[in-house]
Amino acid sequence: MTNLLSEEKSLPQKISEDIIALILEENLQPGDKLPNETILSERLNAGRSSVREAMKLLASRNIVTIRQGSGTYIASSPGMVDDPLGFTFIGNKQKLINDLLEVRFLLEPPIAAMAATRADKKDIKKITALCDEVEDLLKKHEDHTQKDIDFHAAIALSSKNVVVPRLVPVINSSIPLFVETTRGTLLDETIETHREIADAIAAHDPLRAQDAMYLHLVYNRKRIQMIGK
Amino acid sequence: MTNLLSEEKSLPQKISEDIIALILEENLQPGDKLPNETILSERLNAGRSSVREAMKLLASRNIVTIRQGSGTYIASSPGMVDDPLGFTFIGNKQKLINDLLEVRFLLEPPIAAMAATRADKKDIKKITALCDEVEDLLKKHEDHTQKDIDFHAAIALSSKNVVVPRLVPVINSSIPLFVETTRGTLLDETIETHREIADAIAAHDPLRAQDAMYLHLVYNRKRIQMIGK
Repeated sequence: MTNLLSEEKSLPQKISEDIIALILEENLQPGDKLPNETILSERLNAGRSSVREAMKLLASRNIVTIRQGSGTYIASSPGMVDDPLGFTFIGNKQKLINDLLEVRFLLEPPIAAMAATRADKKDIKKITALCDEVEDLLKKHEDHTQKDIDFHAAIALSSKNVVVPRLVPVINSSIPLFVETTRGTLLDETIETHREIADAIAAHDPLRAQDAMYLHLVYNRKRIQMIGK
Repeated sequence: MTNLLSEEKSLPQKISEDIIALILEENLQPGDKLPNETILSERLNAGRSSVREAMKLLASRNIVTIRQGSGTYIASSPGMVDDPLGFTFIGNKQKLINDLLEVRFLLEPPIAAMAATRADKKDIKKITALCDEVEDLLKKHEDHTQKDIDFHAAIALSSKNVVVPRLVPVINSSIPLFVETTRGTLLDETIETHREIADAIAAHDPLRAQDAMYLHLVYNRKRIQMIGK
């Protein structure tokens, strides 16, 4: 991987890179326990306090999870941090909402088509269940944000592309903003277009899935534009 | 923004979030200096050592840059970390290369079209200059990796979408892998397709730019498939 940034590196940063190399070498998986501080400081030829500092850096990047009194473990989605692209620091939130939607138009329809081609029975069951749950919550006028994100994430996972499931939740971090912007007004359209997406994937019909996703996004864009005026 | 992850938060983590809130409130920009530790610990009602720990976390997330003896500053691309989607931890690098290319097929052709529509004179000058530089390096058989990434990043910036320039360098972190995989073999195709992309953007012709980008990616895919056999 290339370095996007090139600032000077501190000793704990260098050691944290050695620990990453060790994780990859030993093929440690999510949930696996790392060697303790004493062993690591011997293996990496570094002081224990530097190793401890390095672990804190790795924890802040969600590569490891430090459990007090138990030890240090590989995180569940190693290396995926909150807000990895730094959207928090984009000042103009209205432009951010519009531009995230523009990117969703590029990504999600072809991803839905990929999911329709590649989803297995287990994937389809999960997508359908999440579609049901979102519909239930919408009808009860309860918060469906998380289940909505999960629905789109399940489709991303069904694409069988290893990059897509890491990308889609980041782009869909806009869903809470959409939901807030369009509160209560998208009920029928969301239910209908979600159902059509789920049915098309279940039928392994890529073009129908792609079109259904476009329709879903078009409704979102129309609503956002109406509210923006 | 939604939290992608929900692990328990330490005191320095909580304070780091307070500091982020303060950065946003005061609309601090890249390069701006933060208040010193004493002032921050008073304003946030926290111990100085916790504030120091929080700053280290923010530095590891590339939100601030700590300059010894000078102070703490907002980083140049706040919140953008190296390898933000954790590709390092995807074990199968051949699948990663293929899947990153699949995502580039979804994103980069329409982004080239957006750039052709929206690029101003300054953007076009920059894209053309980078195209020249990549061509020079290729002809001299020198490493063109960074300039190649810069070329695609300049196109992303010309799209005027605030999300795209944060996304494209992440997806293009695969370029060094491509270059390694296809070393020396892509010379003519890279020169010709890059030039066609740059010319189409300069001519404000979105369809031509989109097609040129497809052609560029198709050459990449063919080459990777040949080598994979």
